[in-house]
Amino acid sequence: MHPQPRLRNILGLSCALLLLFGSLFAASDINKKNTPDYRSLARQLLERGLSEQCTYRILARITSTGPRLAGSSGAAAAVKLTREIMQELGFEAIHLEPTEVPHWVRGPEARARLVSSQLGSTPLSIAAIGGSVPTPDSGLSARVLEVDTFAELKARADEARGRIVFFNRPMDPSNLDTFSAYGAAADQRVQGAVEAARFGAKAVLVRSLTMRLDDYPHTGMMRYDPNTPRIPAACVSTKGAELLHNTLEQDPGAQVFMSFQCRQMPPVMSDNVVGQLTGTDKPQEIILLGGHLDCWDLSHGAHDDGAGCAQALAALRLLKTLGLTPKRTIRAVMFMNEEFGGTGGIDYAAAPKRSGEKHLAALESDWGGFLPLRLGIGLPPKEYERFLRWEPLFRSVGLQGLSRGGGGVDIGPLGAQGTILCGLITDSQRYFDVHHSAKDVLETVHPRELELGTIAMALFAYLVAEEGI
Amino acid sequence: MHPQPRLRNILGLSCALLLLFGSLFAASDINKKNTPDYRSLARQLLERGLSEQCTYRILARITSTGPRLAGSSGAAAAVKLTREIMQELGFEAIHLEPTEVPHWVRGPEARARLVSSQLGSTPLSIAAIGGSVPTPDSGLSARVLEVDTFAELKARADEARGRIVFFNRPMDPSNLDTFSAYGAAADQRVQGAVEAARFGAKAVLVRSLTMRLDDYPHTGMMRYDPNTPRIPAACVSTKGAELLHNTLEQDPGAQVFMSFQCRQMPPVMSDNVVGQLTGTDKPQEIILLGGHLDCWDLSHGAHDDGAGCAQALAALRLLKTLGLTPKRTIRAVMFMNEEFGGTGGIDYAAAPKRSGEKHLAALESDWGGFLPLRLGIGLPPKEYERFLRWEPLFRSVGLQGLSRGGGGVDIGPLGAQGTILCGLITDSQRYFDVHHSAKDVLETVHPRELELGTIAMALFAYLVAEEGI
Repeated sequence: MHPQPRLRNILGLSCALLLLFGSLFAASDINKKNTPDYRSLARQLLERGLSEQCTYRILARITSTGPRLAGSSGAAAAVKLTREIMQELGFEAIHLEPTEVPHWVRGPEARARLVSSQLGSTPLSIAAIGGSVPTPDSGLSARVLEVDTFAELKARADEARGRIVFFNRPMDPSNLDTFSAYGAAADQRVQGAVEAARFGAKAVLVRSLTMRLDDYPHTGMMRYDPNTPRIPAACVSTKGAELLHNTLEQDPGAQVFMSFQCRQMPPVMSDNVVGQLTGTDKPQEIILLGGHLDCWDLSHGAHDDGAGCAQALAALRLLKTLGLTPKRTIRAVMFMNEEFGGTGGIDYAAAPKRSGEKHLAALESDWGGFLPLRLGIGLPPKEYERFLRWEPLFRSVGLQGLSRGGGGVDIGPLGAQGTILCGLITDSQRYFDVHHSAKDVLETVHPRELELGTIAMALFAYLVAEEGI
Repeated sequence: MHPQPRLRNILGLSCALLLLFGSLFAASDINKKNTPDYRSLARQLLERGLSEQCTYRILARITSTGPRLAGSSGAAAAVKLTREIMQELGFEAIHLEPTEVPHWVRGPEARARLVSSQLGSTPLSIAAIGGSVPTPDSGLSARVLEVDTFAELKARADEARGRIVFFNRPMDPSNLDTFSAYGAAADQRVQGAVEAARFGAKAVLVRSLTMRLDDYPHTGMMRYDPNTPRIPAACVSTKGAELLHNTLEQDPGAQVFMSFQCRQMPPVMSDNVVGQLTGTDKPQEIILLGGHLDCWDLSHGAHDDGAGCAQALAALRLLKTLGLTPKRTIRAVMFMNEEFGGTGGIDYAAAPKRSGEKHLAALESDWGGFLPLRLGIGLPPKEYERFLRWEPLFRSVGLQGLSRGGGGVDIGPLGAQGTILCGLITDSQRYFDVHHSAKDVLETVHPRELELGTIAMALFAYLVAEEGI
């Protein structure tokens, strides 16, 4: 008597079981190669995807292995798990491809205090920046030089010696594009230690790269330089940065104590995880969907980039559920080590297995599992114009349209082989609330927004697999 | 030494202070009427809006008055508060316009239990539907008839007598458009009691209108019919609905007990709150921006529709901050009682003050304070085509584009006067997670997403005020 048992009971089933169940009823008309009905395909992908919301359940499993920093046991567990998921979902040619990754260990939680004549001693929330050397075992204390830019640091070089240099330039909130605001502020985190060490600084503290005012430090990558001393570097929460700024205005002699015992260990071997739906007609021509499996160690990397990995897996599953057998190969790749040097992407493109393969297009989802707005297609103008004939299909599954350009760190190296690089462009307004911080957890991902990305990726992959590019 | 003190210190200032501060530095070139530079206007609205994020602070004040159900003391407090905010922000012609509203009182929290031979007695999370009659003081107990549609109810009419009819048709998750999915399921809540009473049912329980599986009941409006008995009606959380469904499959004799002591009181007088930036050239020609001030009583109505009210207020403030003096009047209206009959919108359109006024366009924001995707413009095709020349401006402030059609419950009655009805179309994927439930609180609103709506509304209002429509 209940007309919609599927909608209701489905939530208790695993994605693999759903796939079995779904295949029995798969709509076969899409697969009649002579008369592809892509509008019907798009509708079925949308309805099936949104009904089952399998991407979220896959993401829940990926984030269950804990933080997945490249080189960590969590990353190794995620390699094992995503390989198993590919097996459960019936992917073909499942294998691991080795890549060497750094092995940096954060150690016990960092501690910091602001000591001023006014406030006494107040805790600051900090986190070592990825790749930093540790402080001395007993920590370090110093007066603080606050600057906003490297130019300002240079102008005040004589004040830097023996100090902690505090880079406090916020992400520009007036910038509509939060990625661009991030890019304009990230130099402080990436290069700050080198610039400060040049002038004899003892350590650096960097304002966390988020527009939210909260007490979560955001980590990320940094660089050292062979010509300057390696000094410890940490990010301070935006609330901590405000407190420090205000305190220094009143009490320029205020000191900061900080202590963290991170360690750079010898590199270790890890893996990209690869699986596919092998093409029936041109198996050597490949459409790649990917995300990166590693994440920063302060959280579970739900948006960055568990979401992209789950979407790539779920997109192939969704096509399989509908009984589709693509002419060209559609491959999912979980890249290892985007965050700490991008070795996974480099090694994937250079692997011996690539000879004899032609990657027509690669699409990376690494802008978080938020509402997808557009698909960025890295075609030259003329070819892009032709590709626009598919735009109504993408609109029908919730995208606002297509746009030119696209790509990602991991698929970038394939560009040299003539692969068309593409990316899923999402609503970026909330991304840096969680990015590289303890807040990047499953609960901040919305199942429907996430799924809409999967659906668009599946549609893209199947279209290119059938029609070429 | 600090190049961006504004960005940092601004957070501590009130919006009214910011307005004063901002006006001193207002860009004046936009206001040179002979050469309007709308691209520059759009950029300044964007940068100022996102830097100050005043909308969120206004929303925080609106939601601080507690629930604002029409007729309640919270609604009266919100009328007083938003009038004060208009005064602080220096709006002109601030006044209240009376409207009679129903006065329904929920009473103490509803209680319900599911009693089955298997589970014993288990609590269910329910909330009376707005306008429902109460249960008897001691509650009521009955066996349950579960149906999905009125057709199914009719077919099983002989089973309904003396029972609680349980309408359990979920919102269809496969529907991309959650508003459409809501519309397709809302008949159960609005009309369910009438349909069930027709066949002698004792009461109705309705599955909450959300796609989330959680324990929050969602309320809303319902109707009675003069020809059928008025039976009590409540919504049950989706988790409760699942439990009830599964229990009834095993134990068709299971009973539900429910008790709620809501009361319909005599109608009371309330008000729409009106303020404006009076036009310099054609003050009687009006561009209206509005939202509804009332909300359901289970929460603070942050998205529905505190967001729309805060955006209308902040849009006028933003224009004022930039020193703009529009040719035509730009008016903000906080409509009262959208949720319980729409009397505020009806009375606004019919008020004596409307004679001599011509409302060119009215834009209602009532789709939640989520990422704005499009502005819906209710122009006929030809005029809409002409209006599209402004689309690049709207894209420059973050919209994905314009679309045809638009409107809202409160501005609807203005349509008969030839007013062009418009609406802000937001990402709807998360709306029904919170809609009409205890979850619709400030913390679920993102300051930047909210502000982008304000910016688009301000741009729209100023363009029409300068150029006509």
